[in-house]
Amino acid sequence: MSKIQLEKFQTPNRRLMGAGPSNIYPEVSEALSRHEIGHLDPLFVKMMDEVKSMLRYMFQTKNEFAIAVSAPGSAGMEACFVNLVEPGDKVIVCVNGLFGGRMVENVERVGGTAVVIQDEWGTPVSIDKLEVALEENSDTKIVAFVHAETSTGVRSDAETIAKIAKEHDCLVIADTVTSLAGIPVMTDEWGLDGVYSGSQKCLSSVAGLSPLTFSDKAIEKITNRKSKIQSWFLDQTLVLDYWTGEGKRSYHHTAPINSVYALHESLRLVSNEGLENSWKRHKDAHIRLKKGLEDLNFKFVVEEEYRLPQMNSIYVPDNIDELAVRMELLNDFNLEIGAGLGKLSGKIWRIGLMGYNAREDSVDYCLDALKSVLNK
Amino acid sequence: MSKIQLEKFQTPNRRLMGAGPSNIYPEVSEALSRHEIGHLDPLFVKMMDEVKSMLRYMFQTKNEFAIAVSAPGSAGMEACFVNLVEPGDKVIVCVNGLFGGRMVENVERVGGTAVVIQDEWGTPVSIDKLEVALEENSDTKIVAFVHAETSTGVRSDAETIAKIAKEHDCLVIADTVTSLAGIPVMTDEWGLDGVYSGSQKCLSSVAGLSPLTFSDKAIEKITNRKSKIQSWFLDQTLVLDYWTGEGKRSYHHTAPINSVYALHESLRLVSNEGLENSWKRHKDAHIRLKKGLEDLNFKFVVEEEYRLPQMNSIYVPDNIDELAVRMELLNDFNLEIGAGLGKLSGKIWRIGLMGYNAREDSVDYCLDALKSVLNK
Repeated sequence: MSKIQLEKFQTPNRRLMGAGPSNIYPEVSEALSRHEIGHLDPLFVKMMDEVKSMLRYMFQTKNEFAIAVSAPGSAGMEACFVNLVEPGDKVIVCVNGLFGGRMVENVERVGGTAVVIQDEWGTPVSIDKLEVALEENSDTKIVAFVHAETSTGVRSDAETIAKIAKEHDCLVIADTVTSLAGIPVMTDEWGLDGVYSGSQKCLSSVAGLSPLTFSDKAIEKITNRKSKIQSWFLDQTLVLDYWTGEGKRSYHHTAPINSVYALHESLRLVSNEGLENSWKRHKDAHIRLKKGLEDLNFKFVVEEEYRLPQMNSIYVPDNIDELAVRMELLNDFNLEIGAGLGKLSGKIWRIGLMGYNAREDSVDYCLDALKSVLNK
Repeated sequence: MSKIQLEKFQTPNRRLMGAGPSNIYPEVSEALSRHEIGHLDPLFVKMMDEVKSMLRYMFQTKNEFAIAVSAPGSAGMEACFVNLVEPGDKVIVCVNGLFGGRMVENVERVGGTAVVIQDEWGTPVSIDKLEVALEENSDTKIVAFVHAETSTGVRSDAETIAKIAKEHDCLVIADTVTSLAGIPVMTDEWGLDGVYSGSQKCLSSVAGLSPLTFSDKAIEKITNRKSKIQSWFLDQTLVLDYWTGEGKRSYHHTAPINSVYALHESLRLVSNEGLENSWKRHKDAHIRLKKGLEDLNFKFVVEEEYRLPQMNSIYVPDNIDELAVRMELLNDFNLEIGAGLGKLSGKIWRIGLMGYNAREDSVDYCLDALKSVLNK
């Protein structure tokens, strides 16, 4: 087989204002290129401990178990279901967008029984429907929902969902991929048991890691399982020995060293800023964007009360070629905005104000670019 | 919960000459910090195509399916078993070290039946035992083995193992985590069907990705499965649409953008060097190290014929405190060498000459440091 000779790959300086990944912080970019150390180096173990502490702060939890899964958010999702659901377990899944649908897939693939509550894409999870489903399915073990649906930009009422689930003695799995650091995620106060997120959204770190925390009740369920966890890679009883083993850390898999450097740095930046300030920054940027989009006569997909500041979904007017506009923004303005997914494909745009891009400068750049392209 | 304020994490400039990760190439470090682009950006799709082409060269295959799993080598291993093994399938697993044992775990967790062939740690897979096992288990569907056992430094005869497996109509799964780019891996010539590797060994890229290729026969088995693949994240029928979908690439998960940059660059460097040159470089470095270690009276764990040039396992003399020596090398010389794993824990050292470190300079540095510490 003959050799392949390729040039170095060059990438332009894009503003990533779609559904994620967001642009990383400049400091995260620097951190990425730190000297590599081994994944069992005492210094790396120290770094992991710091990551754990900062993740506890991000998730607002005292949970002992707070780690980063060595793979993207969808692996974090799978880690929750594969560890917490035993074959035959009944799981109520609240579906109001693409990622809720993926949760159903996960329940079924681990041999659980999914009871699906459907809500319209763009609306929050219906509390009434959840209450009815819990009454009708008293043997439910787990309630799962997406806190911030990236596919539509809607926020569901995590606190109330968890409260009701707890009243029925259920564990609660929450997807906070897009919410963490952008809006409050109060793991302990709300009583969430399995919570996962992504590194590349409001944390503005590199894509590829999934922060994950389990409550003590979740850990109890995992350690008392009757059946073996079907995934070796995502078996958190094994990972636990690497991330939290007292004294000696036992080898599980080779951690993605440089990505952990990046996560450490982004967690550090958000910690130093303070969560309240981070939430406010996302909200302020959203208000500025909202004003500009309304001036341009765009309509939001989600009602004001449930809108995520970090994920703004707007309808594309009928007379506009949505793909052509996105490509023009990308090619002429180095600006990425997100397309619709699934049933909203071709119908909406998703403008992300996540992490580093939750600031005036990015909002104004985006609005100016949109105006230029649309006024042509 | 109160804020956590931490300093930037600093890392020393270590030589990573253990069992991996190896040091990354300086160019890979640069590539890591390239401007981020989105995982659905047309430019990123172009990059993925280049990665696929270069992976085909690395694996010496014409397989259409050649991708990088967005997670470490152990997820690449799981991707092979979870896709290729159906519940009830009989799989012969050749175990001669830690990673063979992990394969057995994988077979069992996907509901397959593992027939285990045991060989002593440090010796290659026994061809005779494999032949007997295949005769006795004529309903075997798959033979799985580790080409280069990272836990011991032994090379097994992949060509003959695959030949015999083929004679019994079996698919062949090969772990080439430590072999790829260090010694020949001839996927098509040998007839391997599911082959996975790691980014952080002889490719000297960042840890966290697992190159993977499936033969057409493997793809045929996957697409004709009667049962659903139990992992959503590792379901390669879904990933296929993202990596190879004609025209439109459909979203599966957010690819670890920066890690793919790094992999692209390391594949490019090895492609430009040429595989034959890379193999020779590893061999030359090994010969130099071997001479030096023998001068110091070290004994190799593996017989000469089966030694991996990139992974040199030596016995620790009884009178030496192995942990103390490793810590001294680490702290005083910034040199990491590997400890023994599993049943060889405390008994051996593993000196890696992988990728960037397969060169005279690193060999001499390691030998000099060892001499200094041992002569004290």
